[in-house]
Amino acid sequence: MIPTITAFERSPDRGKGLARDMRVRWALEEVGQPYDVRLVSFKAMKEPAHLALHPFGQIPTYEEGDLALFETGAIVFHIAERHAGLLPDDANARARVITWMFAALNTVEPPILERETAKLVEHDKTWYEERLPFLEDRVRKRLGELSGRLGDANWLDGGFSAGDLLMVSVLLRLKSSGILDEYPNLSAYVARGEARPAYKRAFDAQLAVFTAASTG
Amino acid sequence: MIPTITAFERSPDRGKGLARDMRVRWALEEVGQPYDVRLVSFKAMKEPAHLALHPFGQIPTYEEGDLALFETGAIVFHIAERHAGLLPDDANARARVITWMFAALNTVEPPILERETAKLVEHDKTWYEERLPFLEDRVRKRLGELSGRLGDANWLDGGFSAGDLLMVSVLLRLKSSGILDEYPNLSAYVARGEARPAYKRAFDAQLAVFTAASTG
Repeated sequence: MIPTITAFERSPDRGKGLARDMRVRWALEEVGQPYDVRLVSFKAMKEPAHLALHPFGQIPTYEEGDLALFETGAIVFHIAERHAGLLPDDANARARVITWMFAALNTVEPPILERETAKLVEHDKTWYEERLPFLEDRVRKRLGELSGRLGDANWLDGGFSAGDLLMVSVLLRLKSSGILDEYPNLSAYVARGEARPAYKRAFDAQLAVFTAASTG
Repeated sequence: MIPTITAFERSPDRGKGLARDMRVRWALEEVGQPYDVRLVSFKAMKEPAHLALHPFGQIPTYEEGDLALFETGAIVFHIAERHAGLLPDDANARARVITWMFAALNTVEPPILERETAKLVEHDKTWYEERLPFLEDRVRKRLGELSGRLGDANWLDGGFSAGDLLMVSVLLRLKSSGILDEYPNLSAYVARGEARPAYKRAFDAQLAVFTAASTG
């Protein structure tokens, strides 16, 4: 059965691959699972039909027969549990990968998102310039800790996993900031993720949606 | 085998049950799994021995034989997978509960934590008073959506689950704010969680640690 995911009709990042459908596309490409995409407008995301799928009115969602899921982390985990390639077989290694999935989304992403949110919605406030360094220090604290743990390993725990998929996706949000360049091992880690054929296929697919919306 | 978790030697919330070890204690109590607790000082949390367990220098951690985990969501999931009581047997229902676990930690908790962080570290800034209503509106947006989905159900999806355990824990952070009272069905939902015997046992256990540290 081919699952259907939702994505922005016109991604606010203009096809840079930062919208969260990219994470689900990447997971599906890693495991070789074909998928369909239903595009959703900003208006439709807040209407009852979409809210029935996603109570917080966001993308992506995941539909497969009578199963409907939301939350990127849960969707990536669902895909990882049902296909080989994103979770190790060994029970302890699997639990550690799940730990990295939660760490990416709960510990590393929040300060990165706060910095982005401030840039988007507080850039015209009087406090913005004074507050930004404080937000960036919160990001650096987490990156320093992550960099220390990664060391010179290729991936967070053994081979590439769903934990790396989410962590690389989270760190990619910093690409245009220059902050990631302060941590060479994290920059190299992100580059290793981007170099994966499955990442490239997913990236091209989301970019094609944006390009079509812009020229269509 | 009895697992060992870590908790604050002296919780910054003074035993109100908001430190994240509470979530793990609650999960262990729900499934009837005895556990040991190792208390960690703020200083020790940033030292190599603890960082080897938790790269971000936080609590709780979870050790069970040669398995060491961090991240509350991952620990609760690990407990839920290995014992009956926190995840449904049906595969689709299980996937939906996992969705709520991620939703609690990734979608509902971040704006709540941002409000708390601002209160803690920005309360003496010139912008604090002007910015607080904006932070509270972000919280209200998520609570409104969650309230709409919960409706008059007792729990988020069928019977009590690990998704409810995490969502109630997240919402409890708002208890002293008054914001939760604006959503009667969410207040009642939180009260149902607090009324569970397993919650009460976990709460008493974490409070006993704080009381002993204060009087010892």
